Amino acid sequence: MTTIQPTLGVCYYPEHWPQEMWTDDARRMVETGITHVRIAEFAWSRMEPARDQFDFEWLDEAIETLGQAGLKITMCTPTATPPKWLVDEMPDMVALDGEGHPRGFGSRRHYCFSHLGYRRECARITEILAKRYGGNPHVVAWQTDNEYGCHDTTISYSNAARDGFRNWLAQKYQSPDALNRAWGNIFWSMEVSDFSQIELPNLTVTEANPAHRLDFRRYTSDQVVAFNKNQTDILRKYTKGRDIVHNFMGRYLDFDHHDVSQDLDVASWDSYPLGFLEQFGKDNPWKAHYLRAGDPDFQAFHHDLYRGCKSRWWVMEQQPGPVNWAPWNPAPYEGMVRLWSHEAFAHGAEIVSYFRWRQPPFAQEQFHTALNRPDNSPDIALSEAAQVAHELAGLPQATTEQAKVALIFDYPSIWATEIQPQGADYDGFNRIFEVYRLLRILGLSIDVIPPSASLEGYKVIIAPHLIFISEDFVTRAKASGASLLFGPRSGSRTLDHQIPPNLPPGNLQNLLNVKVLRAESLRPRSMITLDHHRDKMQLWFEHLETGDTVEIIRTTNDDRPAITRTGKATYLAGWPFSETLKRTIQAILKYEGIETVSTGSDLRIRDRGNLRTIVNYGPKPRDASGLISEGDEILVGSREIGIAGVTIVRRNTV
Amino acid sequence: MTTIQPTLGVCYYPEHWPQEMWTDDARRMVETGITHVRIAEFAWSRMEPARDQFDFEWLDEAIETLGQAGLKITMCTPTATPPKWLVDEMPDMVALDGEGHPRGFGSRRHYCFSHLGYRRECARITEILAKRYGGNPHVVAWQTDNEYGCHDTTISYSNAARDGFRNWLAQKYQSPDALNRAWGNIFWSMEVSDFSQIELPNLTVTEANPAHRLDFRRYTSDQVVAFNKNQTDILRKYTKGRDIVHNFMGRYLDFDHHDVSQDLDVASWDSYPLGFLEQFGKDNPWKAHYLRAGDPDFQAFHHDLYRGCKSRWWVMEQQPGPVNWAPWNPAPYEGMVRLWSHEAFAHGAEIVSYFRWRQPPFAQEQFHTALNRPDNSPDIALSEAAQVAHELAGLPQATTEQAKVALIFDYPSIWATEIQPQGADYDGFNRIFEVYRLLRILGLSIDVIPPSASLEGYKVIIAPHLIFISEDFVTRAKASGASLLFGPRSGSRTLDHQIPPNLPPGNLQNLLNVKVLRAESLRPRSMITLDHHRDKMQLWFEHLETGDTVEIIRTTNDDRPAITRTGKATYLAGWPFSETLKRTIQAILKYEGIETVSTGSDLRIRDRGNLRTIVNYGPKPRDASGLISEGDEILVGSREIGIAGVTIVRRNTV
Amino acid sequence: MTTIQPTLGVCYYPEHWPQEMWTDDARRMVETGITHVRIAEFAWSRMEPARDQFDFEWLDEAIETLGQAGLKITMCTPTATPPKWLVDEMPDMVALDGEGHPRGFGSRRHYCFSHLGYRRECARITEILAKRYGGNPHVVAWQTDNEYGCHDTTISYSNAARDGFRNWLAQKYQSPDALNRAWGNIFWSMEVSDFSQIELPNLTVTEANPAHRLDFRRYTSDQVVAFNKNQTDILRKYTKGRDIVHNFMGRYLDFDHHDVSQDLDVASWDSYPLGFLEQFGKDNPWKAHYLRAGDPDFQAFHHDLYRGCKSRWWVMEQQPGPVNWAPWNPAPYEGMVRLWSHEAFAHGAEIVSYFRWRQPPFAQEQFHTALNRPDNSPDIALSEAAQVAHELAGLPQATTEQAKVALIFDYPSIWATEIQPQGADYDGFNRIFEVYRLLRILGLSIDVIPPSASLEGYKVIIAPHLIFISEDFVTRAKASGASLLFGPRSGSRTLDHQIPPNLPPGNLQNLLNVKVLRAESLRPRSMITLDHHRDKMQLWFEHLETGDTVEIIRTTNDDRPAITRTGKATYLAGWPFSETLKRTIQAILKYEGIETVSTGSDLRIRDRGNLRTIVNYGPKPRDASGLISEGDEILVGSREIGIAGVTIVRRNTV
Repeated sequence: MTTIQPTLGVCYYPEHWPQEMWTDDARRMVETGITHVRIAEFAWSRMEPARDQFDFEWLDEAIETLGQAGLKITMCTPTATPPKWLVDEMPDMVALDGEGHPRGFGSRRHYCFSHLGYRRECARITEILAKRYGGNPHVVAWQTDNEYGCHDTTISYSNAARDGFRNWLAQKYQSPDALNRAWGNIFWSMEVSDFSQIELPNLTVTEANPAHRLDFRRYTSDQVVAFNKNQTDILRKYTKGRDIVHNFMGRYLDFDHHDVSQDLDVASWDSYPLGFLEQFGKDNPWKAHYLRAGDPDFQAFHHDLYRGCKSRWWVMEQQPGPVNWAPWNPAPYEGMVRLWSHEAFAHGAEIVSYFRWRQPPFAQEQFHTALNRPDNSPDIALSEAAQVAHELAGLPQATTEQAKVALIFDYPSIWATEIQPQGADYDGFNRIFEVYRLLRILGLSIDVIPPSASLEGYKVIIAPHLIFISEDFVTRAKASGASLLFGPRSGSRTLDHQIPPNLPPGNLQNLLNVKVLRAESLRPRSMITLDHHRDKMQLWFEHLETGDTVEIIRTTNDDRPAITRTGKATYLAGWPFSETLKRTIQAILKYEGIETVSTGSDLRIRDRGNLRTIVNYGPKPRDASGLISEGDEILVGSREIGIAGVTIVRRNTV
Repeated sequence: MTTIQPTLGVCYYPEHWPQEMWTDDARRMVETGITHVRIAEFAWSRMEPARDQFDFEWLDEAIETLGQAGLKITMCTPTATPPKWLVDEMPDMVALDGEGHPRGFGSRRHYCFSHLGYRRECARITEILAKRYGGNPHVVAWQTDNEYGCHDTTISYSNAARDGFRNWLAQKYQSPDALNRAWGNIFWSMEVSDFSQIELPNLTVTEANPAHRLDFRRYTSDQVVAFNKNQTDILRKYTKGRDIVHNFMGRYLDFDHHDVSQDLDVASWDSYPLGFLEQFGKDNPWKAHYLRAGDPDFQAFHHDLYRGCKSRWWVMEQQPGPVNWAPWNPAPYEGMVRLWSHEAFAHGAEIVSYFRWRQPPFAQEQFHTALNRPDNSPDIALSEAAQVAHELAGLPQATTEQAKVALIFDYPSIWATEIQPQGADYDGFNRIFEVYRLLRILGLSIDVIPPSASLEGYKVIIAPHLIFISEDFVTRAKASGASLLFGPRSGSRTLDHQIPPNLPPGNLQNLLNVKVLRAESLRPRSMITLDHHRDKMQLWFEHLETGDTVEIIRTTNDDRPAITRTGKATYLAGWPFSETLKRTIQAILKYEGIETVSTGSDLRIRDRGNLRTIVNYGPKPRDASGLISEGDEILVGSREIGIAGVTIVRRNTV
Repeated sequence: MTTIQPTLGVCYYPEHWPQEMWTDDARRMVETGITHVRIAEFAWSRMEPARDQFDFEWLDEAIETLGQAGLKITMCTPTATPPKWLVDEMPDMVALDGEGHPRGFGSRRHYCFSHLGYRRECARITEILAKRYGGNPHVVAWQTDNEYGCHDTTISYSNAARDGFRNWLAQKYQSPDALNRAWGNIFWSMEVSDFSQIELPNLTVTEANPAHRLDFRRYTSDQVVAFNKNQTDILRKYTKGRDIVHNFMGRYLDFDHHDVSQDLDVASWDSYPLGFLEQFGKDNPWKAHYLRAGDPDFQAFHHDLYRGCKSRWWVMEQQPGPVNWAPWNPAPYEGMVRLWSHEAFAHGAEIVSYFRWRQPPFAQEQFHTALNRPDNSPDIALSEAAQVAHELAGLPQATTEQAKVALIFDYPSIWATEIQPQGADYDGFNRIFEVYRLLRILGLSIDVIPPSASLEGYKVIIAPHLIFISEDFVTRAKASGASLLFGPRSGSRTLDHQIPPNLPPGNLQNLLNVKVLRAESLRPRSMITLDHHRDKMQLWFEHLETGDTVEIIRTTNDDRPAITRTGKATYLAGWPFSETLKRTIQAILKYEGIETVSTGSDLRIRDRGNLRTIVNYGPKPRDASGLISEGDEILVGSREIGIAGVTIVRRNTV
């Protein structure tokens, strides 16, 4: 990865404000240290108030005003908010929910990814914009649409989706018989004799065939890819030398972000730590503890996940204060916006862009704070942004290097267990995130990568939740020479969502020499005790047949294999309790000679080259001496890290 | 307010019973001490079994029988139960729920308030009834429909509602551009170029514009007003000298009862203490404690709320025993029906009318008890009613006077936080009710009034939840000379549901000299400690900028203003814990020289003139000596108040 | 009842596997000790891939292969899985759910019981199969369809259901006026003047008339009866001498299984103890305690319930290991499949048939284990089945005799309280099951019978939940000479779902001489203490008027009758706490001289003739000495019963 000079951005909606304010806005952005500004995201109804009646004067003027002030512009395609006249022309362009209700006009994202008519409209407006502004010297990047899938909009049960799905299946299977065999349709006389007999898998009497559902999820994800590519193909043609970017979300799993990223130059995401804590935090005490800071690993995980999508990445929208969309919306600690910014840079972000310049007094997000208040007085985050800009200027350049530890993240594997969890609380994302948190508390830098990524150069590769495992993956994993750790259910399904003919873990048997004879899921608080009495398994347990070459390193207290090792590959026959998982991983790290620290519950670190960034997510000041070595030079902050504090050191030992 | 002679009523359905029973029923009503009887509420299918085929003989006979016995009759328009032939003629007259399902025939209230065709049918049947019985000497009052909104029937997403809403908006905004500006439709390209482009705010992808939703709520409330006025206009024409009344419900907020009351002579409500406790009681221990009595403040609050709608008011339906519609339906204590009756009179009710004369053996409410059982044997409540009648005869007349303390109740403010609570548990009604309970435990009489009511003569005016505040209100509040107390979020929105240009509290800044820079909501059990360590804030907190004239009377423990006072106006920058709220209010009452008592948790008092009514809602006998002064004359009951006990004293000191 | 020689079966789907495997499969079935095999259940799309294009070669071959190996075959009609081409021909054949959504193709049971066109199709395919295989010497039984009602498919709101319901009502009531009177439609002007005005009782504004809803439930149940009879009539014609059977489910209440059983030769049910525990277990600690065994009474109860439907009965599908359909799916203890099998035989099963021969690697149930794994290796249950077969061979024949205690089970009474529970947690099934469990812990054998069954020969008859009581039942109950025990709400409704003219318990007043003046429901943890301080009532309490002949054997602590006795008939005026219920029942048993034991919480016994089967459902070994008398001969197992242990003794004392 390359060395980059990080900088700040902001999201701006000139169309929301009187033109008289624009010049001063631009001046104050520059004054704050902001270099990039994203505009025009939702402005279709102002660009084209009626069919083929365009008004770009205001946008020309806005670009000129911002550009003249020295700002670099990210232009957006406005396709997340098709205007009313367009929806009225094509009422069937909206998605249908699982119950068949049209998801209508009145907010945003009221379109179906499968609708080809709408795709043509997106191409039309994109081309008009790209032609007009593609060569504009102030415009340095283009964002496609906004937050694909937000408000559960990826999956649609429209006629457009149904027709598209049938074509996609015809292409994939070539004959109904091939599909019948792949899906096992004989099971309940579900056989079809023509692709036109395939229905969408909603509103069935009981669950539809999981193979049917998985293919529909794949199809759906492919439509997001195609929808995005429809725009990037046009942008590439007219906007030479500009970056193409899309802004992803947190813990959003309904399409394959690795696939979409193929057509981008830069991945980005919208980071709202307090909102995410409320939505996804593990329990109420946890949410109360991190109320004003956010989950200490959630942001870092997504930084690493999206860096794994595309080595160049930004935070496109950074939470600046209380937001409007979580069940409860507290204020972050003072300083927290600065902390989140530094943390993103520590993970390799090129740009951290705040959402947004000024809080609107109207419409859906009027409770969402910004860098400035609705009355244009500066809000707290504005001064924090200025401080970050100032501090960035004083820091040396640093390079994000390949980590020693890789964590495998595979969207289809997560879909598979959403479709058939088999245990009601078995969640693929959580399995991966739990390992991530554990590694991070040990102070490690982690690469989160898809199974298709190069495995070379890693010392440890962990696949906590990898349902689909190809022979190729097994070959590359073996060739990497790394220590390998696989979670339960690994390789448990073929690509057709069948049980492998040799039983799970399928292609992994070659590597692990174990066979899963039976799997069971366990209700919360029902657990399996291991030989070492503090060790336990929960959630899931598999009854293994083990080959001669297998070392059984943990058994249950009734003597079944619980954790096995075969060469450098370790297999978890169930999901371990946190402490058991930690001991297992620590043994592997020790074997590979990877040094760890203990950050404690509230501090976290991230190293880039010889720069170490230490942050405090907790509600109390903390002493970070244990994370700073003799001879390290403190560039920002101090050993005692206050609430929302950041300490950056140049390490002597690296 | 005028002195009235309270009396008893009953709800009666002659059409449910053989005509042979009517004479004896009437005789026994009179014998019990009942003077008023409500009839014909749901009897459309008997009045008009088929289009234009009328049968009024039975009703003529019923009226004659009751009237001859000396009973005064409240006639009802039967419009809550349109018959099947009418629905079949106009299938689109039914409401649609939020998912678009027609809410069909088979129970009651199967109509949409916006449907003009049904409104014409209501006018037709009302006119026929009014012409026939308007001058009947036995008929002294008319009830329109029944329980507007019951079973969530106020809000409808029908085509009739959509068309009506478009017209209402056209009338209000005159141009699409004005609407676009008021709503801030530019936000997500939601702009319209014609009123016919406005859709109803349901089934949108994510929440519709809050201004859109608020206008729809206002429109919807206006339709209830118009629906009611459609009938009262006709009744006024044909029923000179008779009272027009409608029976409201408990904790029902979907239309503005102050507006509907403009067209009535008398407000009334249906009081079901045990059912309401099950539905709305604050938690399970509370529900268990008051299982057989009901919440000790819920009835009183509604008595005062509806007295604030119309100074003349009745209880139209009084719970007589176990009901059928709550999750659990226990029996009240013996004596409890008597207690509820006396309490209503203490708050100024003219009539307490029991629901109903005899329990029906059939249909939806067969589990709902009455004054008589289905086999015509007398149930417990009949003797309690007789006792009340006897006691009323022995009590002196008393006048309901203006209270010293006013509590502001504003329906649109409650809608605003239903639409954008910002904190999931922020409920406007509960904010007001919590203050009411606190004042009532201090023994005070309270007027619950709309912000448009006269504020003159009050010593203390409290607005716990007043989102919309006009300049006029501020002027009148100041002019009243009263001590004022405002809850958080006061004045936080303009009438267009925008943040005020000068930030919240908007027009109140003039009075309070504070500005809200930031607001945050807090999850349950996350709280903010104040300087005085027992004081805390919860749910909501605002970061204030305070002017020179502002006295900061409480701060947070990190020194932010928490409670401020400016002249005689106090502002709460967050929602206080119960004890903190109590201390704040007590200080204001003390300042105004208003004496308080402490009723304890189970006793409650209400004074009218020099009559004090003391009731015991608790599960144990209580000594009420602390609430009775030397020289007070006990007219009913005794100092020791038993379970469900009532003590009425003539006070020496007033 | 007759003495039968119990044996084992298995469910097999030859169409899921290559024909090459069939011969070996059959050989290994026989080797295991299996004698019966059920086939062709879901195979319509293979029998008739397109309209009138039949392919029976594979089925001929499968039958021949299995038959030649010595296996007896149960053939199925494949009507639970109509193929896609048929649904496409008749799209309106699918059921509509309560919100009006079609329940579409893509899984199974996508049909409406009321659809006459589909019924004709079922007759067509049944006749084709019956003609072809009715006389086949290997085919000894026929199963109709599969699990009527599974996935909530009994109740449908389709047009077919609506039309059928109108005809059914016309037949029942003959005139709209009769229906209006029976339902009490005057109540809310719900009167109709033509049967075509009757709508289905879904999507009404609030609950539809309970009489309307109850008739719809009766109608719906009748359609299941008619649907089944449509097939059995054909099967009787072509399959002389063969048994006709249907496989019922656990705790499924939406149709009257007694009625359906009239047209069967054998009742059967599908027993999945661990899945049922997860779905229906009483609370989380209970589910954790019996995690790997299932509820210790649930299976036994259903064995007795279905034996009460038809004296000949089978377990058609026996859980063999983890299943796929419960929220969590743990593995049973080793030995548990054997235990469940022996327990079924102890209750009189002729056949216990395992589901299924081999776990499919594809489609919806790929996580559902079987006797063999997907790779054809034997799973644990296969050896347990072999052990059962071996043990059966060594046991003497035993006869199931009439029990001394009868428990009345009435489907319509359960519907009535589903429709109007009046207390949210009042569940008719649970009331009966709670008494069953209590009797079983006392070691008793129980007959679970409909109220229409003969009551002769019983010493004790208990009706915990019998809403509808005919005069005939009262007469027969009296004539039986048995001690009688009635739960609250007994006889509380007429067949028209009205309160009886003489008040509840209606026809029972004749027997009990009590009258219910008032009934109340109680929220959880609100209870009524009785005179004996350890005795309490919960859930429900009735205020009784008692006649002279009534002995009040328990009162509340405020002196109301709580339990009464009149002659040999005891009445519970509320639902007693477990210990109170136990004391009441024990007194009756003692009076009748019925000996009891105490099995403790985890052991259970069941006697057939002189054979006693003792099973251990608990997580620890148990000493069963207290359940084995001196001189009893232990045939299987030992006094110390291990986890999942079974001990069978020949009793000396019987």
